[in-house]
Amino acid sequence: MDLKEYITIVPDWPKPGVEFKDITTLMDNGEAFKYATDKIVEYAKEKEIDLIVGPEARGFIIGCPVAYALGLGFAPVRKEGKLPRETVKVDYGLEYGKDVLTIHKDAVKPGQKVLIIDDLLATGGTIEATIKLVESLGGVVAGIAFLIELTYLEGRKKLNKYDINALIHY
Amino acid sequence: MDLKEYITIVPDWPKPGVEFKDITTLMDNGEAFKYATDKIVEYAKEKEIDLIVGPEARGFIIGCPVAYALGLGFAPVRKEGKLPRETVKVDYGLEYGKDVLTIHKDAVKPGQKVLIIDDLLATGGTIEATIKLVESLGGVVAGIAFLIELTYLEGRKKLNKYDINALIHY
Repeated sequence: MDLKEYITIVPDWPKPGVEFKDITTLMDNGEAFKYATDKIVEYAKEKEIDLIVGPEARGFIIGCPVAYALGLGFAPVRKEGKLPRETVKVDYGLEYGKDVLTIHKDAVKPGQKVLIIDDLLATGGTIEATIKLVESLGGVVAGIAFLIELTYLEGRKKLNKYDINALIHY
Repeated sequence: MDLKEYITIVPDWPKPGVEFKDITTLMDNGEAFKYATDKIVEYAKEKEIDLIVGPEARGFIIGCPVAYALGLGFAPVRKEGKLPRETVKVDYGLEYGKDVLTIHKDAVKPGQKVLIIDDLLATGGTIEATIKLVESLGGVVAGIAFLIELTYLEGRKKLNKYDINALIHY
């Protein structure tokens, strides 16, 4: 199955000159959604993962089904103020200004092998912040999986210490 | 399995007097997360569902695994400005002020039997808005599933035309 066929390119969104990769047309198709999830499940099995971690909100879309398929837990990474108990947090740079990501302090146990999942690898800022959160709790980032990698943005360079798997490349 | 044991009650969050029901400790436990998802999968099978719809972000957490388990598509309902293509939208009341929810115009096909999934039924405002979006596209709301229902808030009354399934009650 060529998953690229299920991605919709939206020109000039969210601003002029950007070709947005819309995954909702893949998610809307049960067969494509299952196929993509199963590919990441296979990867997770190779890596002998203990826990799935994903940043909100699109990291939940593939991350939660992968956790379910493997019978593993899923720990959400969320913007500041969204998680109700004690968290660790990290600042990360956005194109303009910065933002804060958080994870519950008890979400990852020391030594757990973690697979981080998000929909898309662009410049890698969100994932770099997510890695910091996982490692600050003693988790081992055993792999990082994406539906889509925008190879021309070279986010992979920033993450070169880690094993990365992406299903669709632009 | 008593799912309630995996929910953490967080007193005085997000404001004094509220006992927040934190589902992250359920999600973090692979066995509990799978058990809860499978219960909603069973319900979806009874209702012969064609498509899963869930509001962001916590609706994705159970909704996406249920879609995956059934080989069905998942259509996200998101806040205004988050979905990149043509949407329909609906205003809904919050405790203070109002907000706007949207869904892609092509996300639901006329006549499709839809299961709406969210983490928690409180007063029912978000779900009422989600129902309006699905029905405006010609979808048939064949069921609504929650992890948790706060029965004392009587959200069910507002949704009395619909079939509702909740796994945990307070």
